Amino acid sequence: MRFGVLGTGRITRRLVADLQSTPGATVTVIGSRDSARANWSGAEYGIPHAVTGYENVLLHPDVDAVYIALPPSLHTPWCLEAAAAGKHLLCEKPLATTAAEALTIDSACRKHNVRWLDATAWLHHERTAAMRGWLTDGTLGNLRHVSVAISFFEPFQNGDHRLDPALGGGCLLDLGWYAVGCAIAAAGPPRMVFATTLLRGEVAIRSSGVVWFDNDVTATVHCGYDVATRKWCEWAGDQASVVCDDFSRPWNDRPPRVWIHNRAGEVVSHSFQGSQERNLIAKLISAEPLESFQLQALRTQAVLEAMNRSSQSGTVESITCD
Amino acid sequence: MRFGVLGTGRITRRLVADLQSTPGATVTVIGSRDSARANWSGAEYGIPHAVTGYENVLLHPDVDAVYIALPPSLHTPWCLEAAAAGKHLLCEKPLATTAAEALTIDSACRKHNVRWLDATAWLHHERTAAMRGWLTDGTLGNLRHVSVAISFFEPFQNGDHRLDPALGGGCLLDLGWYAVGCAIAAAGPPRMVFATTLLRGEVAIRSSGVVWFDNDVTATVHCGYDVATRKWCEWAGDQASVVCDDFSRPWNDRPPRVWIHNRAGEVVSHSFQGSQERNLIAKLISAEPLESFQLQALRTQAVLEAMNRSSQSGTVESITCD
Repeated sequence: MRFGVLGTGRITRRLVADLQSTPGATVTVIGSRDSARANWSGAEYGIPHAVTGYENVLLHPDVDAVYIALPPSLHTPWCLEAAAAGKHLLCEKPLATTAAEALTIDSACRKHNVRWLDATAWLHHERTAAMRGWLTDGTLGNLRHVSVAISFFEPFQNGDHRLDPALGGGCLLDLGWYAVGCAIAAAGPPRMVFATTLLRGEVAIRSSGVVWFDNDVTATVHCGYDVATRKWCEWAGDQASVVCDDFSRPWNDRPPRVWIHNRAGEVVSHSFQGSQERNLIAKLISAEPLESFQLQALRTQAVLEAMNRSSQSGTVESITCD
Repeated sequence: MRFGVLGTGRITRRLVADLQSTPGATVTVIGSRDSARANWSGAEYGIPHAVTGYENVLLHPDVDAVYIALPPSLHTPWCLEAAAAGKHLLCEKPLATTAAEALTIDSACRKHNVRWLDATAWLHHERTAAMRGWLTDGTLGNLRHVSVAISFFEPFQNGDHRLDPALGGGCLLDLGWYAVGCAIAAAGPPRMVFATTLLRGEVAIRSSGVVWFDNDVTATVHCGYDVATRKWCEWAGDQASVVCDDFSRPWNDRPPRVWIHNRAGEVVSHSFQGSQERNLIAKLISAEPLESFQLQALRTQAVLEAMNRSSQSGTVESITCD
């Protein structure tokens, strides 16, 4: 599958390399609003064609799919353009900035018969599959509570969209996507949420919340730009808990691990291999069903929107999603 | 200091041994409502005098202080009796069942010039002092968020007061005392709280909440009787986090440890020695000021009461305490 890339931001570099190294995927075109940036990135990444304007990525004859690496506020318009052009879609998280927009993207992709995934790679790691397995095979017993915290201390570059509310900035749509997604990956459809968000200007800097799920499962979720970097979760059942200290992306210098803590306080470590990003890409370009990952994204978007509402209202907000 | 013990429940055995092994403390009398239980416990623990009726512990000439190991609903009446009798007080947690009762105990002790501590031993561990030190010496940077979870899976014995709402049962007053206390120990006076509590009958089985402190510090707290045993906390600053997996009482088979995680994901382990229980007792029988620990208990009691209120109202509750 031949990918065109929309955007030349810092995030692009890593996933382009993953696209180029996944069997069956190639990167043929990169586009920027700025021709110099497009040319520089194309040369730097070894991409054959550099074009000016995102629309020219969609019009290029060598493109079957697009990777959208633009700021969040541009995801929906360009996802819709790409779907209408019949291109399969890999979109950076957050999929959109509201739950309604996310549903619109999903509908457009169904209508135009294109496959879509958001670029939430950790969901595709073998480790995540093992964690889910321990929920279904009884290792953890009945799931009771998920705790998750993810922070990156002031990860901003000059002009970073994460500080611009007009571009969909703030930690909720960014780090909150992982925090909330982690709880949903364990517990399924969310039902209610309470959240509190610390703002700097109009931008969410830190947010904490409680999420309710079916079967009395609860979660505490936390994300922030003003806390030292961490990315941990705990899925706690009535028989054991599984803990991971780098769930969203494994630390560079360590094998991906998790620890299972049992009722007696004994700890067993499990380690894993494989690239979550290549797994993600392989899934998109395969013929495998994608619905469970799409549902995960739509649920995550619904919770983030409700967390924003709850932070403003100061009350518990209901969530209606499949 | 010569201690009389009120109560012969399971919790008594451990702390009596700690009292007996702390220099300067002795245990002279144990009392139960039931004379056979008093006699059995006295013989079993090697306590010289066994008496029937708690009032006879207070009346015994060889008693300077009491250890109150009764169900929570009996703490306030017996603390007040003991204070009026001029006995120093070591009371099992929770100090009381309401914030107003806790303040009454504190006032009575001041009036009668007796020293009091609640038996929350982890606050007196060298490890806890080191954790506080990393907050003040800049190791963690500015404190931003505390995460804490403590659960003991169905720890009930026959007739356990923890399943009896009339005796002050439920996980909030029990495990919640540690969870909330951990956040207060790091962040100081609490200002607001939101909580949700799962009930079985009228008894709190699992509770999760968000607590707000001064300087935009937040905490997520969680406790439960239906989750596999765990007792971890994370104090997260903007420079580093400290994590402990057994803060309330060190695992039996391991040295007490904490891990400091820095912004680069590097982890340094620190280990400690010493008995938190003997430190607690030594503090009470010394001439050292106790106000900071008393304030900690009164604040904890205020948050637990507000968590109960919030769980019923479904809204954020204010907390007024020093």
